[in-house]
Amino acid sequence: MEFIQTYGAYIESQIQKLDFPKSPATLYDPLRYFMQIGGKRMRPMLTLLGAELLGIKKEKAINAALAIEVFHNFSLIHDDIMDEAPLRRGFQTVHTKWDTNTAILSGDVLLIKAYELLEQQPGDLRAMLKVFNQTAKEICEGQQLDVDYESKENLSIEDYIKMIRLKTSVLLGCALEFSAIIANSSEEDRKNMYEYGVNVGLAFQIQDDILDLYADPSKFGKQVGGDVIANKKTILYLLALQNASDEQLKQLEVLKTEENTALKIQETTKIFDDLNVKQKSLELVNHYFLKAKENLLMVSKKSNSNNSLEALADYLLTREV
Amino acid sequence: MEFIQTYGAYIESQIQKLDFPKSPATLYDPLRYFMQIGGKRMRPMLTLLGAELLGIKKEKAINAALAIEVFHNFSLIHDDIMDEAPLRRGFQTVHTKWDTNTAILSGDVLLIKAYELLEQQPGDLRAMLKVFNQTAKEICEGQQLDVDYESKENLSIEDYIKMIRLKTSVLLGCALEFSAIIANSSEEDRKNMYEYGVNVGLAFQIQDDILDLYADPSKFGKQVGGDVIANKKTILYLLALQNASDEQLKQLEVLKTEENTALKIQETTKIFDDLNVKQKSLELVNHYFLKAKENLLMVSKKSNSNNSLEALADYLLTREV
Repeated sequence: MEFIQTYGAYIESQIQKLDFPKSPATLYDPLRYFMQIGGKRMRPMLTLLGAELLGIKKEKAINAALAIEVFHNFSLIHDDIMDEAPLRRGFQTVHTKWDTNTAILSGDVLLIKAYELLEQQPGDLRAMLKVFNQTAKEICEGQQLDVDYESKENLSIEDYIKMIRLKTSVLLGCALEFSAIIANSSEEDRKNMYEYGVNVGLAFQIQDDILDLYADPSKFGKQVGGDVIANKKTILYLLALQNASDEQLKQLEVLKTEENTALKIQETTKIFDDLNVKQKSLELVNHYFLKAKENLLMVSKKSNSNNSLEALADYLLTREV
Repeated sequence: MEFIQTYGAYIESQIQKLDFPKSPATLYDPLRYFMQIGGKRMRPMLTLLGAELLGIKKEKAINAALAIEVFHNFSLIHDDIMDEAPLRRGFQTVHTKWDTNTAILSGDVLLIKAYELLEQQPGDLRAMLKVFNQTAKEICEGQQLDVDYESKENLSIEDYIKMIRLKTSVLLGCALEFSAIIANSSEEDRKNMYEYGVNVGLAFQIQDDILDLYADPSKFGKQVGGDVIANKKTILYLLALQNASDEQLKQLEVLKTEENTALKIQETTKIFDDLNVKQKSLELVNHYFLKAKENLLMVSKKSNSNNSLEALADYLLTREV
């Protein structure tokens, strides 16, 4: 997938060019730091590949792409405060390296920077601003739901899907609707590009939950089973709850407080396997992946057959599980 | 000043109509609460009066006006976290009534709401978005400078003016440039409206510092001398430092740790009076007020002689000192 390197390098070079002022250093140093600690830059890549699919050169959609990536980083800085996360991608989070006040204010200015990049993007600004505002609000709602869910009983699969749709998937939808707006696509093509992004996002997020427990430890970047240790309400856990016998429910409840983490992971996995939740989750991944493919098929005015966008999604969604 | 009531009531009714969703309640309840605890709504009033001056009915500029007020409230919610303020306008702050995480996320969504209102404002959206982004960034910079200044030695009057310009005055400028953009004013008239707002804002902020110590206690809404008690680096204090003898400098330094607040205020005021800093500060108020009047005079295409905008500024800046 050579184009991933090419596009990635292009995005990275543009991120380096974001001109944060020197002063006040206490405001802008944290942003220079955080924007450089990386990430896969998949979201802006979606905008650029979407644009290319619709006949627009990547250079003509770069500011919209950067707006998406900058917004994403804003939300990470603030989420990290709320989650009390010490590390992000192996580096200290902003509120850890500096302090909470710095992380709040730097985050705010990064959110504003996203709007600044959007303002510098040629195209129907009102249309872009509208979808961006809606998306940004939904992402805040998703983060709030995620917090609320920690203490909520009887979470349904629908609740879970609603939360990950808001918290992570709509930004992928927005990234691709930007391409369609820049390409002057029809209202229907805009909607299909958006839905394609959302469905890829849902599939990807569910797959993330699966990988967290079932990934090959030698290939997985972090500790396998982290979600189980943290008692996170993942799709695996919710599907298990839905299908478990009273006995298994009791066992899962007891395992929550098991302090031997290796044993906790082993026993939980055994129950999950007995209940076939990995398979059920994979079916959900497939369900949203197929919906995504349908959405993309329905985009009428594609400019070429060199569909790197679809190749990227295929690549993302065939991570080994 | 009957128009202040009329415009104020109109703005208030429009704020009541802001449709924050019911759910997640944990995200939107704090915003309903905070937007209702009031304030003078002077900033959106500037936009409406500015629009009227340029021949635009208030109803045609209301979304831009609300964007300004909503942004202002976002910045208050986040500033209150950073300042650890328990009260705002006599009511509990959001992070006190709920918690810090709620105040961060609700604030974020309120900032996004400001952009949503801007998107719903007819007119040159790109021009409005540009000045709004610039203003919003500057306000964050001003807040950061305010924090930085607490521990900075040898603060000059210029440092202070720079900080209040960014932290509070540019939003008044933006409120009025919005009117000019909506009215399709020339680039020069836009600039003059903006500068008028900035200069009114500077005069107002310096006057605020003076009032904090010299207001008539029976008419002042809060404790007279609060800034002195808190050792705040107000314009009075900085002018005193600039003019004080070595002996007076020593006295001021000692007074910082004086625990008898009545005595602290009395002794500090005596030094301030000996150094004539109230008069010097009033001269600064007057300086910026006159600059503002010049800016307004230079706006070429006014639509009528019923200049409520100027009347409002006159009213604001003739508070008894």
